[in-house]
Amino acid sequence: MQHIAILGSTGSIGTQALEVIAHHPELYRVTALAAYHNDHLLEEQIGKFNPLVAVLIDDKAALRLKSRYRGATRILAGEEGLLEAATLPAADIVLTAMVGAAGIKPTIAAIEAGKNIALANKETLVAAGEIVTQRAREKGVQLLPVDSEHSALMQCLHGENVKNVKRLLITASGGPFRGCTAEQLATITVEQCLRHPNWSMGKKITVDSATLINKGLEVIEAKWLFGIEYDNIDVVVHPQSIVHSMVEFVDGSTIAQLGKPDMRLPIQYAFTYPKRISSPSPVMDWTQLTRLEFMAPDKKTFRGLELAYRVGRCGGTLPCVFNAANEIAVNAFLTRKLPFLEIVTVIEDTVNQHQNVIKPSLPAIFTADLWAREYAEELVARYARENT
Amino acid sequence: MQHIAILGSTGSIGTQALEVIAHHPELYRVTALAAYHNDHLLEEQIGKFNPLVAVLIDDKAALRLKSRYRGATRILAGEEGLLEAATLPAADIVLTAMVGAAGIKPTIAAIEAGKNIALANKETLVAAGEIVTQRAREKGVQLLPVDSEHSALMQCLHGENVKNVKRLLITASGGPFRGCTAEQLATITVEQCLRHPNWSMGKKITVDSATLINKGLEVIEAKWLFGIEYDNIDVVVHPQSIVHSMVEFVDGSTIAQLGKPDMRLPIQYAFTYPKRISSPSPVMDWTQLTRLEFMAPDKKTFRGLELAYRVGRCGGTLPCVFNAANEIAVNAFLTRKLPFLEIVTVIEDTVNQHQNVIKPSLPAIFTADLWAREYAEELVARYARENT
Repeated sequence: MQHIAILGSTGSIGTQALEVIAHHPELYRVTALAAYHNDHLLEEQIGKFNPLVAVLIDDKAALRLKSRYRGATRILAGEEGLLEAATLPAADIVLTAMVGAAGIKPTIAAIEAGKNIALANKETLVAAGEIVTQRAREKGVQLLPVDSEHSALMQCLHGENVKNVKRLLITASGGPFRGCTAEQLATITVEQCLRHPNWSMGKKITVDSATLINKGLEVIEAKWLFGIEYDNIDVVVHPQSIVHSMVEFVDGSTIAQLGKPDMRLPIQYAFTYPKRISSPSPVMDWTQLTRLEFMAPDKKTFRGLELAYRVGRCGGTLPCVFNAANEIAVNAFLTRKLPFLEIVTVIEDTVNQHQNVIKPSLPAIFTADLWAREYAEELVARYARENT
Repeated sequence: MQHIAILGSTGSIGTQALEVIAHHPELYRVTALAAYHNDHLLEEQIGKFNPLVAVLIDDKAALRLKSRYRGATRILAGEEGLLEAATLPAADIVLTAMVGAAGIKPTIAAIEAGKNIALANKETLVAAGEIVTQRAREKGVQLLPVDSEHSALMQCLHGENVKNVKRLLITASGGPFRGCTAEQLATITVEQCLRHPNWSMGKKITVDSATLINKGLEVIEAKWLFGIEYDNIDVVVHPQSIVHSMVEFVDGSTIAQLGKPDMRLPIQYAFTYPKRISSPSPVMDWTQLTRLEFMAPDKKTFRGLELAYRVGRCGGTLPCVFNAANEIAVNAFLTRKLPFLEIVTVIEDTVNQHQNVIKPSLPAIFTADLWAREYAEELVARYARENT
């Protein structure tokens, strides 16, 4: 029986993780649930999974729930509550499925408490990859990726020596705007952007997929998870999202992981690694004509990908700044303050203005994160002033 | 340093194995070379690799070589010489790359002598799979497949629990006649048949690819190598021959092995398993548009595949008979005594006439093999009488 804490339980990954857990009640028990402010869904989840602790980060939402809840689960609030959920003695695994850099502190707290991490919050590794992977090594805890691409890479690398890796090949659907020119991208609406062809995901990651910045974040995540240098990580566009990633070895052999685009699969694998158990996920029907295509990404039109490689290679606080500026710019796009193509411009301008700190401490990372958010907000405000 | 004996050194697999060995002189040493009757090529190989022993099965060819050779290598002849080459104390690995059921005796002799087997002779497992795998288990020796499909399956299964396998998916190029109707196949010439679109191989296996009987033999080989039941082994047509096979697991995840069609890759992997070392094999260029297609095989037109499943499921001496009849029929096709479509008819008629022996001893297998060859020869002769 494994005991699991789920941080971000009302989001896309969180709800699918609970589906996996509900499918195997004999194997898993939920110790804690944490959400941002969706008190109604959290209450429903509490009723179904009976965690020891449930957290709402938003104080008002926590108060609303506390005022009406009469069960045995302890209801906590705020960041303090989140950190308690992340470090509960009863948990073996903490699934970090919060959105954005908000995941850094609870992830590190969980590592310090000796929990294995099912990592769905890639921003933590982007912003603080060196510190997080080093602490995980020191504590002897596993960082188990939940991203479908990194789960695929972990599966392809299982039983192999990482020294024999020639290249990681991270596949990208190419997003809804694959093949579009910059001119066509200029007038993209939020609605068009949220219509991802293959994956049903949260809003932020869906926009990141459309800009290819998600792929850039994944390249940095892969560097830290697997210890592979940027020169040996490539992105390959694969519109069908069946091959979730590949590893090429020194002998010329390539191992790939395939499956229907269904996040329950990598979530479950993070829980069962290195074992496998049955799942309700549908299998491929190879008797029907199946076509898998691969091509190079359009790095000129989707500039965020190259920018991610650049900040990744520089290291220091730059990847954190890249990520923070992206969070602000995506939010501005989603609230219609910024057009689609300006997302990468805001990130570029922020990154270019940043005084990089090499080998940063955690406080230095948080400082850089805050600076980048403020700077990017300023750029968004300036854009609004100049374009209304 | 690993010491390798190569049985079938002048054939397609043998010569490519020597390329692999020549590429890593610090890792491999050739202890024995054995060929059927190509004394000139064998002499050249002796000069380059200095084995302890070299064998020509054909006595006249052995006499020719002995009469002119003055080096340190011992020249042996006949089956006796082959068995000595297969069991030399100095060898760690024996690569069995002879054509057809002739591989059974030396393979078993090598297993008895405690050698790991790099198995390129699938007919051995088809005809005597139960005995061969059982003796290998008892002797604690490894059966390392050299077939690209089985090497792929071994790579996909590496580090995994075979109990978690849902299906093996063996890919098939579909051969040169994929999409052809029975009417079109009726007039196929030997020359058309030997033009395989992706792989450069020996004549016998090239014809077997065109009939899909090679795939049937591979299904039986996979059953014995990996202990997976026939219901859980599927064949998927994949014209590009890039995905060499796949394994689907109980969690819905599929692992595939990919690479350029280059036999040096699986040969080397059999030598290095479970490690990998660099190879001169070219890697895939994913920046060029790559299309991988998959579809069901046409089992109605290519009847040999279903027949292989049938004899495999029945077991006993039937798979041996299937294989022996195929060897005779293919030879008759190559010598223009039998049209292409009659190959499977000869096999079917032979299989249908056979009195199956369940749990056969090795002598019972050899008896069935001989009976099948004679019966199939008779069918070929009858066909010639009735059609001239």
